Amino acid sequence: MSILVVGSVALDSVKTPFGEREEVLGGSAVFFGVAASFFSEVRISAVVGEDFPPRHLDFLASRGIDLEGLQRRPGRTFRWKGYYDYDLNDAHTLDTQLNVFQDFQPELPESYRDSEFVFLANIDPVLQRRVLEQVRSPRLVLCDTMNYWIENRREELLKTIGMVDIMLLNDAEARQLTGEPNLIQAGRSILKMGPRRVIIKKGEHGVLMLGPDSFFSLTAYPLEYVFDPTGAGDSFGGGFLGSLSRYEEFGEEELRRSVVYGSVMASFNVESFSCDRLGELTREDVEKRFREFMMMTRFT
Amino acid sequence: MSILVVGSVALDSVKTPFGEREEVLGGSAVFFGVAASFFSEVRISAVVGEDFPPRHLDFLASRGIDLEGLQRRPGRTFRWKGYYDYDLNDAHTLDTQLNVFQDFQPELPESYRDSEFVFLANIDPVLQRRVLEQVRSPRLVLCDTMNYWIENRREELLKTIGMVDIMLLNDAEARQLTGEPNLIQAGRSILKMGPRRVIIKKGEHGVLMLGPDSFFSLTAYPLEYVFDPTGAGDSFGGGFLGSLSRYEEFGEEELRRSVVYGSVMASFNVESFSCDRLGELTREDVEKRFREFMMMTRFT
Repeated sequence: MSILVVGSVALDSVKTPFGEREEVLGGSAVFFGVAASFFSEVRISAVVGEDFPPRHLDFLASRGIDLEGLQRRPGRTFRWKGYYDYDLNDAHTLDTQLNVFQDFQPELPESYRDSEFVFLANIDPVLQRRVLEQVRSPRLVLCDTMNYWIENRREELLKTIGMVDIMLLNDAEARQLTGEPNLIQAGRSILKMGPRRVIIKKGEHGVLMLGPDSFFSLTAYPLEYVFDPTGAGDSFGGGFLGSLSRYEEFGEEELRRSVVYGSVMASFNVESFSCDRLGELTREDVEKRFREFMMMTRFT
Repeated sequence: MSILVVGSVALDSVKTPFGEREEVLGGSAVFFGVAASFFSEVRISAVVGEDFPPRHLDFLASRGIDLEGLQRRPGRTFRWKGYYDYDLNDAHTLDTQLNVFQDFQPELPESYRDSEFVFLANIDPVLQRRVLEQVRSPRLVLCDTMNYWIENRREELLKTIGMVDIMLLNDAEARQLTGEPNLIQAGRSILKMGPRRVIIKKGEHGVLMLGPDSFFSLTAYPLEYVFDPTGAGDSFGGGFLGSLSRYEEFGEEELRRSVVYGSVMASFNVESFSCDRLGELTREDVEKRFREFMMMTRFT
């Protein structure tokens, strides 16, 4: 099993009600990759600048993540600066410096082209399709996006959505993409665009997964403190696809269990800045929290 | 099994994005009583004015609800007028006419004093305690409240909370009562005030139940249209206490199952104005939706 993620590697400066960090490791490919590395072999396609600290590369390598497709280009690494108020569902961007990420072209090394699972993190939908052209026969493609592409690249995004197996987006994005205020109706509309399943992340309110004849609703893990929500969606994706990669078939049962593993990884991720919490986890921590999800939602 | 509810019987004028109704049957004791009547014998202690339409009494009686404690007083019935915007979690009050409800004194008929289960709907906490003084040996007391009492009768409310088994309130009320923005911490604080369990209603985001060593989280039923949220919390209470009244013991398993029945009744209630939807339900409809809750939350 091999999972390819194409997305960003970034240096994040983040302020939340619980603290502040300058230029810590971030980016969609990082959060996804570290979360998925608990389950499977992971390959990253992304770009960093000459200033990218080698210790971050060491950390990713220590998680067994394949970095052959991580391009190093002249210039500075992508930087994002933002803050969260007490409503930790909304990120407020203070500054975005795309730097080397501006001209990122996902050219996959030959060794990545047999990847079985693909996560198209939040990048230009045209680039997302360029990735798909290079992967020979993926078993499952998961796709993320964001408000910017919904607003400015709608037609291209719709083409990409039509080619993926599972669409992953948050509640505001689902509403924006479809014009439907009700999430169930929004989810149904997205299914008509092509994917077999749509997963709608609701932050502290949990997650929904809709299929043509199925509906799964999972509450979020009850955290007393959310330190930093940055990367929650991508670590969800990593746990989800990581879990799914262990199965031969992707029926409702496997998909649901994987949604829970996604929620497990997201819940750990937000307990610290950057990947600090994910980096210190054991596989037993992951399984323990999966069982806690079961305990807290079960009724007879 | 006998359930006593003490609260309001009202004539509601409600406007939502989906329509408008003038002077329809409402009030906490009504929504609770009708929902609970699917499970158990229900007794209402409340007051109406001389103008209260006899057809509403007929409807309540048709649900097998005991109206001996429903006082009829000179004057007009309690009226509430409000509207909901697209965010159906927030009720906006346009007008409240307490009328005969202003001087309501819950004097229980002798036949009510052996009630085994008691729901103290949202009334003055001093009156809530006056009810408890009149019930000989209730097996379980469930208590609701609202922002007005939290703000203006805090000390009295705390005394009442200290005497009840289960506290039922919504997320905003839990935060207001405790000063804790995080709902888990708010729930823990409320447990320290005395109750064995606290149930926090989160509207379209479901419901939490906390005990000293237990945590249960249930998502809301996925409705494509919420016609009118009025009475959702009270019909939750009716389904919850109705279900619970069928058991000999109130362990975590019975409590959780009852939270689901509460959510079932609330989800039906909001599908129409007033009690229209509750009034036309069959017991089989109720069981079917309970099974749907199980189907949509289950994972292995």
